[in-house]
Amino acid sequence: MAQIAAVAAHGDNPAHEARLRIRNGIHTDHTAGLAPGYVQANLAIMPKEYAQEFQTFCQLNPKPCPMLAIGEVGSPHLPTLGADLDLRTDLSGYRVFRDGVEIDVTDDITKYWRDDLVSFPLGCSFSFEDALLRDDIPLKHFERNECVAMYVTNIDTAPSGRFGGKMVVSMRPLKPADAIRAVQITSRFPNVHGAPVHIGLPEAIGVEDLEKPVFGGAPPRMADDEIPVFWACGVTPQVAIETAKPSFCITHQPGRMLITDLKNSHLSII
Amino acid sequence: MAQIAAVAAHGDNPAHEARLRIRNGIHTDHTAGLAPGYVQANLAIMPKEYAQEFQTFCQLNPKPCPMLAIGEVGSPHLPTLGADLDLRTDLSGYRVFRDGVEIDVTDDITKYWRDDLVSFPLGCSFSFEDALLRDDIPLKHFERNECVAMYVTNIDTAPSGRFGGKMVVSMRPLKPADAIRAVQITSRFPNVHGAPVHIGLPEAIGVEDLEKPVFGGAPPRMADDEIPVFWACGVTPQVAIETAKPSFCITHQPGRMLITDLKNSHLSII
Repeated sequence: MAQIAAVAAHGDNPAHEARLRIRNGIHTDHTAGLAPGYVQANLAIMPKEYAQEFQTFCQLNPKPCPMLAIGEVGSPHLPTLGADLDLRTDLSGYRVFRDGVEIDVTDDITKYWRDDLVSFPLGCSFSFEDALLRDDIPLKHFERNECVAMYVTNIDTAPSGRFGGKMVVSMRPLKPADAIRAVQITSRFPNVHGAPVHIGLPEAIGVEDLEKPVFGGAPPRMADDEIPVFWACGVTPQVAIETAKPSFCITHQPGRMLITDLKNSHLSII
Repeated sequence: MAQIAAVAAHGDNPAHEARLRIRNGIHTDHTAGLAPGYVQANLAIMPKEYAQEFQTFCQLNPKPCPMLAIGEVGSPHLPTLGADLDLRTDLSGYRVFRDGVEIDVTDDITKYWRDDLVSFPLGCSFSFEDALLRDDIPLKHFERNECVAMYVTNIDTAPSGRFGGKMVVSMRPLKPADAIRAVQITSRFPNVHGAPVHIGLPEAIGVEDLEKPVFGGAPPRMADDEIPVFWACGVTPQVAIETAKPSFCITHQPGRMLITDLKNSHLSII
């Protein structure tokens, strides 16, 4: 989080425009392809009672849970990610949970907002995928317009209070030279999952069948000249939250991310 | 080459001491373990008639042939690698070739020195292996005191005049997480072969049997939890020289390297 200093100028920019369109009900779909080049974030919002435990969980597990900012208690704003940003209205889809049970799916959480809520925007693989694509590394799930393959591993996260569980990973099949390049590129982006956590041997991390991903991911259909490259995935904190079952919680709806004024390229540490 | 600016202080330093001991016939063995932390280099010396072609070969193939300096025509000195350094006496073993045929193996090439010779010190994997070991990445050939496994690939080098041929690689078996870390670490060291050129699929680069390396390397005896990681190797220019058969040529004897005043850690670009 400390590395993030560059916020785009306020006012008219594609990220600001995209948030306005969502806020005003003009854009009601997922956010893939919106405001290209700008960071989109996973979002978790929970009561102060759980916040410090969850914050520690993220800090202990920075690869699956890279914190882009932390909201002030009760504030629906995240000024370092966008001056006008309003977490109550600026996502096109939210999931609302009570005691671990989903009670609503909505595009406006104004009526659910509370003075004790703390917001956690977490880095998302869209940002490093943007960097990979800009470097001409082919991503087959993009070409096929499919959801990236995800798996539950046998890697334990470092637990914090009620939050814990196994690490979830996303996998992209790459040719060996592209895999090496992808390690270099994503190493520059620790705030959006960073370098891969595993490469080459799925069974070593408890993944028995690459062609059977979970969480709606499409089978990757590996080619003979490709190796599997695994990154820590933002679904990890969602699983941790489902396990912890906080009394109240709001997350983004999958694919409907928080669009920020940060540029993907500005997240590069070198 | 441009990245190299830091040369250790002249005078008493372990590299200088090691060169003196070799020059004075006190140290007559290989150089592994001498002057720990200091860059050891491959060496190729050839007449001006071949120099520009070979220099271009190195520049076109920087991963197998990273130039640490270029000698001035006729000079046996390389002041940027050591103020006192004398290429005629400071290696514990040289091979002398005429028309591609080895005519002498010696520890002093003073009598062979000519006014038209140009020297090419090339980076060596000792430097990045030093960085890997300092980061606690186990290298099995080190533990076993064996020569690293090397292979001729189907990867063509970019030819330059009479110099060309296939790329030779060295291979280190690593656990997947160590392989990712090794990509990160060696990416910082472009002057000593840099990042791997291949990972995971030997047959894709024409290596049919990992357990049958060439050039005296020991069988790596891969374990089930390891993947093969391949780096461009300094034997590549030696093979190119053997193919070109220059009228006259001097190289280091394997394992008897040029010890320089550069520190391995100073070669890191970040």
